[in-house]
Amino acid sequence: MNTDLKQMAIAAKAAAVEMSKASLKQKNGALKALIENLKNHEDAILQENQRDLTLAKSNGLNASLLERLSLANRLKGIIHDIEQVIALPDPVGILCDEQTLPNQLKVAKCSTPIGVLGVIYESRPNVTLDISVLTMKSGNCAILRGGSESFYTNQILVKIIQQSLLEADLPIETIQFITNSDRAQVKKLLQLHESIDLIIPRGGAALQQFCLEHSTIPVITGGIGICHLFVDESADLERSLVVILNAKTQRPSVCNALDTLLVHSSVASIFIPKVVQTLNEKGVIFRLDPKAWDIAREPSCKLAESADWDTEWLSLILGIKVVENLEEAVQHIRMHSTGHSDGILTENHQHAELFIQQVDSAAVYVNASTRFTDGGQFGLGAEVAISTQKIHARGPMGLKELTSYKWIVRGNYQIRN
Amino acid sequence: MNTDLKQMAIAAKAAAVEMSKASLKQKNGALKALIENLKNHEDAILQENQRDLTLAKSNGLNASLLERLSLANRLKGIIHDIEQVIALPDPVGILCDEQTLPNQLKVAKCSTPIGVLGVIYESRPNVTLDISVLTMKSGNCAILRGGSESFYTNQILVKIIQQSLLEADLPIETIQFITNSDRAQVKKLLQLHESIDLIIPRGGAALQQFCLEHSTIPVITGGIGICHLFVDESADLERSLVVILNAKTQRPSVCNALDTLLVHSSVASIFIPKVVQTLNEKGVIFRLDPKAWDIAREPSCKLAESADWDTEWLSLILGIKVVENLEEAVQHIRMHSTGHSDGILTENHQHAELFIQQVDSAAVYVNASTRFTDGGQFGLGAEVAISTQKIHARGPMGLKELTSYKWIVRGNYQIRN
Repeated sequence: MNTDLKQMAIAAKAAAVEMSKASLKQKNGALKALIENLKNHEDAILQENQRDLTLAKSNGLNASLLERLSLANRLKGIIHDIEQVIALPDPVGILCDEQTLPNQLKVAKCSTPIGVLGVIYESRPNVTLDISVLTMKSGNCAILRGGSESFYTNQILVKIIQQSLLEADLPIETIQFITNSDRAQVKKLLQLHESIDLIIPRGGAALQQFCLEHSTIPVITGGIGICHLFVDESADLERSLVVILNAKTQRPSVCNALDTLLVHSSVASIFIPKVVQTLNEKGVIFRLDPKAWDIAREPSCKLAESADWDTEWLSLILGIKVVENLEEAVQHIRMHSTGHSDGILTENHQHAELFIQQVDSAAVYVNASTRFTDGGQFGLGAEVAISTQKIHARGPMGLKELTSYKWIVRGNYQIRN
Repeated sequence: MNTDLKQMAIAAKAAAVEMSKASLKQKNGALKALIENLKNHEDAILQENQRDLTLAKSNGLNASLLERLSLANRLKGIIHDIEQVIALPDPVGILCDEQTLPNQLKVAKCSTPIGVLGVIYESRPNVTLDISVLTMKSGNCAILRGGSESFYTNQILVKIIQQSLLEADLPIETIQFITNSDRAQVKKLLQLHESIDLIIPRGGAALQQFCLEHSTIPVITGGIGICHLFVDESADLERSLVVILNAKTQRPSVCNALDTLLVHSSVASIFIPKVVQTLNEKGVIFRLDPKAWDIAREPSCKLAESADWDTEWLSLILGIKVVENLEEAVQHIRMHSTGHSDGILTENHQHAELFIQQVDSAAVYVNASTRFTDGGQFGLGAEVAISTQKIHARGPMGLKELTSYKWIVRGNYQIRN
C-alpha cells in the first residue's frame, strides 16, 4: 500500500469518477460485503488489534487512549452502524431548488459526491470504518491517515474494505490508507489540491491549526468542544442536576462533554452545593469563579484561573461560574465557547428562544444534555467529524454533508439577451 | 475609514452579532433606504466615478476594463437588482431536517448568517453594491477590498451604504471598506481567522492561488471559466449555431463565455465551416486542432498549441476540436474545464443524461448557451461570486449560499444512555 502520495491522490481522483457513477445497489453491495467480511475475519482483526494494544501498552499509552484503540466487543456495534447506513437513502442525485425560468430554461440543483477526501485522525480504528462507510455510500473516495498506534488494525481493516469494494465491482482506490507514519506526509497531503477536494482533520488544536496554515485545499475544522450549560433561575433544578451529571460524567473524554456550568445568581446558593456534592461522588473536581467560591469551598473545589474558562477538560473537571442573568451567560459563552455544543436549562420559554437566537454554536440545546451532539444520535447513521466552523457543514457530518451539488440546466437552444 | 485592519475585523464581528438578530423588516428597510440614497446622490456618484475613469484613462487602462469601471447608465439596473433582492424571502431562520428522535428530543437545522465575509474583487463598483446588498439581506457583515482604480467611486458608495444602515438603525460596521491599496493588506486580511469566517476572492488565478496559500480562513474560489460546448452528431445544427454565437460573442470578456467548441466527427465537415464563417463575421478568430484544421484553413484560423486548451480567452478567440464521440468530449472536458459551465447540444436524450452525469462542473447545460450561469439569471437576485469548488457552494452564490446553519435541540431534560 506504500505507493507515493501523489500517485495515491491521482488514483483516488480516477476512482472518484467511477464512484460518482455507482448505483445505490452497488454501493450498498460493497457495504453488505463489508459486513460479511468483518464477521468472517473477526478473529484476525482482533489479533491485529491486540498487536497494536500490546505495543501501545509497552509504549506507556494511557488507559483512555488504550480504550479508544481497542476493538474488543465493538465489532457488533460497528456492524450495526453499517446496517444503519445501508438503510439510509442515496445522498447523491437528489434534486432541489427546481425552477422553470421565464425563458423556459429548466434549472435545478442536483447533489453530487464531493470527490476525494483527505482525512487525518487519531488512533481509533472504529473511525476508519465510520469514515470509509460514509465515504463509500456517498460516492466519494478517501485517503486516510490514522494514528500510528493503530497501524496493524488499520492495515487489516483497509484490506477488508478494499476486498469488499472489489466484490462489488468498485475501485479499490476508493479507500486508501497512508501507512508511512512520517509527519511530513501530512504536509504533502495538504498541498495536493489538484486531486483532493476536502481535508478533514480530526484531532487536537495543533493539528487543526497546522492544516489551516499549510493546506491549499478546503479544510473542515471541528471536534474541539468547550461546552456550556446555563442554569436559568426558572430551571427545574432537580432535573437539571441529572442533565449536568450526564453531560459531565457519562463520557468525560469526548468533545461534547460539559466543561463549564453557568448558574443564575438567584439559584446559585442552593444549587451549586448540590452540584458539587452530587458530581464529586462521581469523582468530579471543580474550578470556581469568586462568587461560586464564596458558596462552595469544598475540598473538591479551587478558585479558577482565567485560562480555565478556555480549557476543554476532557476529564472529570468542571468549571462553575455565577452569572447575573441570561445576557451575562450568553456573553460568557460567546467569549469562551468553541461553538460546539451549548445549552440552557430553563422553564422560561422566552429565555429559551433568546438563548437559541443569540448563542452561535453548532448545536444549541434547551433542557437536554450536550452529549447528544453526534451523528448517530442525530439520525445520520454515523459521522465523519463534528464541524465547528460555519462553511459547508456545521455539527455532525453525515452523508448529506459529504455531498456537493451541480446546477443542471435543460433548454431548447435558448440564448441570453 | 482607514482604521487598522484588525480593528475593522473586530468591529465587523461585533456588528455581526447585531445583524444576526436584525428582523427582515429592518434589513429590507436598509435596502430601501439605499435605493433612495442612490437616487438622491446619483450626480455625486457619477462625478466620483468620472474621477476614477479620468485617472484610469490617463493610466492607460484598456477599453474592456474601463467599461467595467464605469457606472454611467448602470444605476437604474442596479436599483432594479436591489428591488429584486428586497422581494426575496429572509434566508435566515429557515428550519430544515426537522425530526423528533425516539427519546422525544426535537432536532432541527436552522439557517443562520455566516458572520463576517472578506471579499477581494476587481475594479467594478457595481460589485460593491451587489455584495453589500446580499450581505445585508443575509444578516452578514463584510470587509470589502475593491480594485484601486475604482477608489473614489467605492468611497462614495460605501458612505451611502453606511448612511442607509444608519437610517435603518443597523451598525455601519456591517459594510466596511479597505481604502489602503497596499497589497500587504490582503495578506493581513487572510490571517484574521478569529474575526473573519469566509474569504471570497474574485479575480484572476494568481489572486486565488495567493489566497489559498496564505489564508487561514476558508476560501471560496471560482469565477475562472474555461467553458465548453459539445456539438453531438444529433444536434440541431442550425439552432446550435445560434447558441454558439451567443455563448462566444454576447459578452466575450466574462467567465461564462465559450472558450472551446467540441464537434462530433460525423458533423464536423459540414458544421465547422459554418461556425467559422458566422462567428468570424462578428470578429472571432479560431484555434483549431489538426482534424478541424483539415476542414477549415481560413485566414481567421490557426493550428492550436496545446496550452490553448487550458486558456480562458476572455476575448473573441474560440478553440475548435473534433472528437469521435461523447466519451472523448467528456474526457476533454474533464481534462481542461475549470468546472464552471459546460454543455452539450444534442437531440439524443440518452447522450444528454450521460453528459449531465459525467461532466463535473458547477453548471452543466443541455441545449442552451453557457452565458446563463449567473445569480441574476438563476433567480438569486444577484451574486457575490460564482464558485467552481465543491465545498459549501457551487456556481452562483446568492443569499442562501451566504448562510450557515445551527442544530437546535429542544428537550425535556433528556440524558444520553
